[in-house]
Amino acid sequence: MAGLINSTEGILFTDFYQLTMAQLYHEAGMHSKEVQFEYFFRTYPDYGEHKAGYCVNCGLQSLIEWMQGASFTDKDIDHLKKHKGSNNKPIFKKRFLSWLRENGNFKGLSMRAIPEGRVVHPNVPLVVVEGPFAMAQILESSLLNHLNFQTLVATKAARIKDASENGVVIDFGMRRAQGKGANEASRAALIGGAEFSSNSGLSYSLGYLPKGTHAHSMVQAYMAQGYGELKAFQSYADLYPDDCLLLVDTIDTLKSGIPNAIKVFKQLKKKGHKPVGIRLDSGDLAYLSIQAVRMLDRAGFKETLIVLSNELDELVIWQILSQIRKESSRYGVNPGNLIKRLVYGVGTRLATSAGDSSLDGVYKLTAVKQNNSWLPAIKISEVAAKTINPGFKKIFRIYDKRKKATADLIALDGEDISRQKEILLYHPIEPSKIRRLGRVHISEIEALLVDIIKKGKTVYSFPSIENIRQMRDKDLDRLDAGIRRLINPHIYHISLSQGLWELKQKLTKNKINSYK
Amino acid sequence: MAGLINSTEGILFTDFYQLTMAQLYHEAGMHSKEVQFEYFFRTYPDYGEHKAGYCVNCGLQSLIEWMQGASFTDKDIDHLKKHKGSNNKPIFKKRFLSWLRENGNFKGLSMRAIPEGRVVHPNVPLVVVEGPFAMAQILESSLLNHLNFQTLVATKAARIKDASENGVVIDFGMRRAQGKGANEASRAALIGGAEFSSNSGLSYSLGYLPKGTHAHSMVQAYMAQGYGELKAFQSYADLYPDDCLLLVDTIDTLKSGIPNAIKVFKQLKKKGHKPVGIRLDSGDLAYLSIQAVRMLDRAGFKETLIVLSNELDELVIWQILSQIRKESSRYGVNPGNLIKRLVYGVGTRLATSAGDSSLDGVYKLTAVKQNNSWLPAIKISEVAAKTINPGFKKIFRIYDKRKKATADLIALDGEDISRQKEILLYHPIEPSKIRRLGRVHISEIEALLVDIIKKGKTVYSFPSIENIRQMRDKDLDRLDAGIRRLINPHIYHISLSQGLWELKQKLTKNKINSYK
Repeated sequence: MAGLINSTEGILFTDFYQLTMAQLYHEAGMHSKEVQFEYFFRTYPDYGEHKAGYCVNCGLQSLIEWMQGASFTDKDIDHLKKHKGSNNKPIFKKRFLSWLRENGNFKGLSMRAIPEGRVVHPNVPLVVVEGPFAMAQILESSLLNHLNFQTLVATKAARIKDASENGVVIDFGMRRAQGKGANEASRAALIGGAEFSSNSGLSYSLGYLPKGTHAHSMVQAYMAQGYGELKAFQSYADLYPDDCLLLVDTIDTLKSGIPNAIKVFKQLKKKGHKPVGIRLDSGDLAYLSIQAVRMLDRAGFKETLIVLSNELDELVIWQILSQIRKESSRYGVNPGNLIKRLVYGVGTRLATSAGDSSLDGVYKLTAVKQNNSWLPAIKISEVAAKTINPGFKKIFRIYDKRKKATADLIALDGEDISRQKEILLYHPIEPSKIRRLGRVHISEIEALLVDIIKKGKTVYSFPSIENIRQMRDKDLDRLDAGIRRLINPHIYHISLSQGLWELKQKLTKNKINSYK
Repeated sequence: MAGLINSTEGILFTDFYQLTMAQLYHEAGMHSKEVQFEYFFRTYPDYGEHKAGYCVNCGLQSLIEWMQGASFTDKDIDHLKKHKGSNNKPIFKKRFLSWLRENGNFKGLSMRAIPEGRVVHPNVPLVVVEGPFAMAQILESSLLNHLNFQTLVATKAARIKDASENGVVIDFGMRRAQGKGANEASRAALIGGAEFSSNSGLSYSLGYLPKGTHAHSMVQAYMAQGYGELKAFQSYADLYPDDCLLLVDTIDTLKSGIPNAIKVFKQLKKKGHKPVGIRLDSGDLAYLSIQAVRMLDRAGFKETLIVLSNELDELVIWQILSQIRKESSRYGVNPGNLIKRLVYGVGTRLATSAGDSSLDGVYKLTAVKQNNSWLPAIKISEVAAKTINPGFKKIFRIYDKRKKATADLIALDGEDISRQKEILLYHPIEPSKIRRLGRVHISEIEALLVDIIKKGKTVYSFPSIENIRQMRDKDLDRLDAGIRRLINPHIYHISLSQGLWELKQKLTKNKINSYK
């Protein structure tokens, strides 16, 4: 698809109906009408055997950078000009296309959002876009694409890191990732829980050093030429004496790979170098890592790392650690020491969020400005949970006396939550479920949305990946252990304020009456 | 990631270990040694409840275009130059980097491959790369990335089209697809089974018109301003009188959406236009489409289409059609007529291959040239099925007397399969399973690999998407119905020739002896 990057990755990286709707708004004189759209997801990723209890917000900076570079080029306009409808006439009118050529960019939009790295929950607006209707509409597809996928992968990465008990996780996913989406996956992995990535270009571009070991093909190549695994290892060690990490399963892990690695490590040690470790990529990784540590320890390499790879994910890692805890001592190995030396190369199941390969984020019109005031917009669904929360909103996170997050509260703009003596938390769907939270039980009320763009001008200074990770860790620390549980997590409270609840009831009733 | 496209999408779109291995081959003087790598996948996608019985090969042209544009730029070299190892010295030596700057491209490689759109099966080499070791190695990650994902999505699309009984499928997936991988997903969907895509830029770039309807937000916007759904529909119909397809579930499908759509369709008809159809995006799609057809028929719109969307995949479509067949007649609707009018907007579950989000394709060294002859390379695995098939190979598809494909045969280069009176088909793992196929039962033996690149020169003329689709249909027609079955498909035979079987046995034995 070379040479077509402008059309495939620029502003036409959007669903076609955004363009036909934008033209309709232009024809109806509604294209400049100020509106609000909200981005939120409806459910946590559900990986089949296990469901997430939280998500890690991700993708915002990538989206903003895309928005800054996106506008209708002559080539884009040309594609639209040539597009004919069923009547063989152009679908797009000249007046719309010339408007689009002039105004078809995102410079009129404002955006509030929850920063990247924050822990987030369903039905809470993570991004609020405000601005002229036509361009706010055209933004939809790309916004969803950027945010859904990166939040999905960052969440998976956080779970994997959690399962590894804060071990070092390296993203190895690009070979089975989704085309160029591999880059977004690696970025999200670095934000959500991976320390490093094997993806070279992406790592360098974000200021990280990519990491890796070597492949089976290296050993095979030496063998095909009549040399052995040992010679392959020696050559590698000669070239990378201080970064020597050897893959030991090309022939036989315990009988060939580890003994040969130990021979090479001894030579390195003699020359004053410190071998880094070995990688296990097949077989029973728990059993093999116990045996590996035994052999390495006996040979005097008590600090070399053991990198595990091969279809790892949070459950597989959890099982490996459980097995090590149970089985190590029978081989005279201290499980705690072993676990500290493990590094996790996690690929496919991280990059593709195996088990649940999409986040169900949506972008919904919530308010329209009329005579300087916001009119709430609503879509009534046959499923109550899918009926949109209308109006201009604020989001608060409420922390209890233990300084743990106890609820996210979606409120109307006008409501002054912080002054209320007792906060009423309405269940988003069930009218009878109301939680009353007295001021005395609250340690902090935090507003979550921050200004990112005001009328096209970026007013937010994007934090470094390091800073994003710190925010993530701080938020994870403030989650109840039950919410972080890998399987069957406790359910975090997402509540509506009294004002929002009442507005939603009123509008739903009106809308239902309107077609009767 | 603006401005970083060169490093993130160019030749550094690779795993880091490819670069460290390439340097090792350079240091060892092996970088120019001619080698062969093969790309193959090991298992069909397994979607949990159901497993594929075939795949549709896809991604080759995208890969070749990437290869043609990929080489080490000054910026790339600069990233590598600055990369320091644990000893705080540069990982990459100057002599390697200057070699890379001069020779770091894919112009020395040759490639044979099975064309896009062909039906393909596990363990059969789909691509054979031949050329200098270092660059053949660096190619690995990007090759896997391009081919694994597109074959995965093309396969899903073929199954969805099959389930729809050759109905029109439209790709709606970009909003939940994997970042820029959405473009690769849309291309693969168009090749595998989707007629059209909503992805505007990608569709235009491939010469297709993107398709779409409108969103709920359009109706909501009119409503928030005090108008109704009817007014929204009328405005849309006025602007697109010959392309009028209305989304009818913003308020209530049966009580509001369809009656309003019918009113608008009647106005269009009076003015001499033909309304296109309606879209159902929530609720019981089988029940609602029966009711919709009833209402549309009664109003005289016996040809308007019904577009279904909302988390569709092959099983959901299959269930909808079954339900329509069972239930239509009780409402006086002819199920066959209804089914002919259905169009399927398939999004998330297609673009992300929900249920199995990755294809397990690998790229393995199979041969190394020494003194002008190919030495087979092998990796022995603890799992017999994962032991690589060694050597320089050819692939044949054997058709039986009914002209159905009956087996894919992997043979050594020297073997003359077409002259054998009886072909022995060895099971790839189990020694006792040998199928004997007499010449008299064979209608055709087809060589599957074609020359794509010879020493960097593309010698293959890439077919149009239309031609690729014809190849796909031809291949699907030549599959047994049992292999195409959505659930629990019959297993297609992938066999080794006698020559390959014997070579593999010999090498495995030698390798196992070599470390004893």
